[in-house]
Amino acid sequence: MKFSKKIEKCGLSPMRKFHPYAVAAQERGIKLYHLNIGQPDIETPPAYFEAAKAFNQPVLEYAPSVGVPELIDAIQKYYDNLDMHFEKNEIYITAGGSEALLMVMAAILDDGDEILIPEPYYPNYDTMANLCGASIHPIPTTPEEGYHYADRAKIEAEINEHTRAIMVTNPGNPTGVVLTPEEMRLMVDIAKEHDLFIIGDEAYREFVYAGEPLQSLGQFEDAAENVIVIDTVSKRFSACGARIGCVITRNHELLDQIMKYCQCRLCVPTIDQLASAALYDVGPEYFAKVREEYKKRRDTVMAGLEKIPGVICKCPKGAFYVMAALPVDDAEKFQYWLLEEWDDNGESVMFAPGEGFYGTPGRGKNEVRLAYVLKQADLERAMDLLAKGIAAYNAR
Amino acid sequence: MKFSKKIEKCGLSPMRKFHPYAVAAQERGIKLYHLNIGQPDIETPPAYFEAAKAFNQPVLEYAPSVGVPELIDAIQKYYDNLDMHFEKNEIYITAGGSEALLMVMAAILDDGDEILIPEPYYPNYDTMANLCGASIHPIPTTPEEGYHYADRAKIEAEINEHTRAIMVTNPGNPTGVVLTPEEMRLMVDIAKEHDLFIIGDEAYREFVYAGEPLQSLGQFEDAAENVIVIDTVSKRFSACGARIGCVITRNHELLDQIMKYCQCRLCVPTIDQLASAALYDVGPEYFAKVREEYKKRRDTVMAGLEKIPGVICKCPKGAFYVMAALPVDDAEKFQYWLLEEWDDNGESVMFAPGEGFYGTPGRGKNEVRLAYVLKQADLERAMDLLAKGIAAYNAR
Repeated sequence: MKFSKKIEKCGLSPMRKFHPYAVAAQERGIKLYHLNIGQPDIETPPAYFEAAKAFNQPVLEYAPSVGVPELIDAIQKYYDNLDMHFEKNEIYITAGGSEALLMVMAAILDDGDEILIPEPYYPNYDTMANLCGASIHPIPTTPEEGYHYADRAKIEAEINEHTRAIMVTNPGNPTGVVLTPEEMRLMVDIAKEHDLFIIGDEAYREFVYAGEPLQSLGQFEDAAENVIVIDTVSKRFSACGARIGCVITRNHELLDQIMKYCQCRLCVPTIDQLASAALYDVGPEYFAKVREEYKKRRDTVMAGLEKIPGVICKCPKGAFYVMAALPVDDAEKFQYWLLEEWDDNGESVMFAPGEGFYGTPGRGKNEVRLAYVLKQADLERAMDLLAKGIAAYNAR
Repeated sequence: MKFSKKIEKCGLSPMRKFHPYAVAAQERGIKLYHLNIGQPDIETPPAYFEAAKAFNQPVLEYAPSVGVPELIDAIQKYYDNLDMHFEKNEIYITAGGSEALLMVMAAILDDGDEILIPEPYYPNYDTMANLCGASIHPIPTTPEEGYHYADRAKIEAEINEHTRAIMVTNPGNPTGVVLTPEEMRLMVDIAKEHDLFIIGDEAYREFVYAGEPLQSLGQFEDAAENVIVIDTVSKRFSACGARIGCVITRNHELLDQIMKYCQCRLCVPTIDQLASAALYDVGPEYFAKVREEYKKRRDTVMAGLEKIPGVICKCPKGAFYVMAALPVDDAEKFQYWLLEEWDDNGESVMFAPGEGFYGTPGRGKNEVRLAYVLKQADLERAMDLLAKGIAAYNAR
């Protein structure tokens, strides 16, 4: 049987391929430290579970296609507190940030169209764009420049007749790059001047470590037609398994188009929406504590990397990832070797090899993404294993 | 800003347009009886809510992309009890039957491709196919023949070089048509002979009223490459707001393709999956009781229709819908009139006009879909209002 050209163009998750090797290592008794996945270990606020338990309707009915009013209200208030106002009908609830992105791309991308995205980027973006018959056009960056991309010349050099949108993950996954207010203004101006959508995947908004105020592309009311914000409770509240996100825009024509997609999948789960609404009652002390914890972890990772000769890495300002170039020939080969041939006192380490985050073939070969979602002591040991592993690998 | 051709081709739900008129009628004090929506009023089994409450992990983590093992096991066992065996890796959990359909269509449909579907059909299928750049090619049926479609000549006349799949909603929405075992065999044979996928949307499987055994296209192991089953807990357990469904197939190449889509949206909500697994512990007495209740309601609707001169309707064997041709010039006009100009003792009635269920322009104009999801007494009154409304409308 024949499959669609669109799905044939998609690939499996580049992170998954190491899973069987990890299982085999564990079966040999090796303890693995996981710097490879973005699943936070921070506890989900109990408010979520309490609200889910409080649901007491006898029939679990469909919710409205755009979301339950309680959650839309909570999100509106959250943005009001950040000095950004959206009308209730400018917020559509989605099955995680992922569905929000699928909907937006389906609404704006035709066959052969392109979205500009700074490279390295979250690999699932490729699948989402490919499913629309479109593709991602990378904006190149380098580890030496700390993956900096907010540069007019650099971006405009990549715009062509197929470009439909610029997309940024801000704070960045996998790079941790955080745009300054001036850089956000620049990105929005470029989108406006070239009549492009600008999509902000802002899943990691709260995870910034220099005391800077929280930001969003939603601030730019002068670009109401262009700006699309993708949001989610997944990382913000350590509630990845809730699958609750939203798409926010002041472009009502776009909302009308996306509504068609919303209606065809009927709705997002009722109880998860009500439970997620309760998350927004969590106070600023929750975020302050979480931020403090992640900041310590980032500093631990950076301290570990600084001790390894030949590493190229600038300290990232946000999210919970560090992207770095390692002094190895090939990070994938190195990962296989760490899983199959090496251990230190029965322990080894995993990371996400960089190649999977690049659209440009051949790039990212010696780079890795390290996710700091482990407790302090484990993180220290993981960085120690990485340093020892690199030394042993290069001394073979 | 420009939108994609694919989304421009999609429409809004044809049922939604009456909503503002219904609100206006209610504001004038009119009580409306809703035969227009497929939201069951039967209570969700408490096992769902109990299992949701029992969740006690401190972190609400991502679930596996293909679903949690507990739910996959429960579904496998459910099919084993129906004498159909699927391996665990042949069942992928999805966000309702809707996402299962979106995934399958994305995996098999290219631009210009067609899916054959008996007409009238569930309108969201249009959006799903259009989002893939494909379209639905209707197999025509008539109310006089009870919307019968399982006819080799009728189906083969519609197959062309663009046809990629045949899809059936069995039992049918909106028609209530249930295929006999021989008709299912025929449909599968046609698909095999023409090298097509055959997709069974079997959301209403349990809702059959002649004591016949429960069926599925999954029975046909000789068509392992062709058969795709779409399933959901929504109607089966009156749990529409859970948004838990699945796609089942023995075609492993197709599973490999769909896996890419599964991974890009990460997973389906963790708690809803565990709660849905608990639903499958509900015993056969639950289904027997629900079936008995819906059967009585169907008989009430049919008795009501038989009293109205000029109605064309054969008694449907399944689902919870009756599709009928009414003795009116235009069912949409009639619905607007019922909402804006008529009442009987301050009460009126809503249905789903038939035109929205047809892909062929101009068809279904005097047809309606009646959903029997009201309690007995309300249903009797609704049918009484329909009869009186028709008489008054035609006597204007």
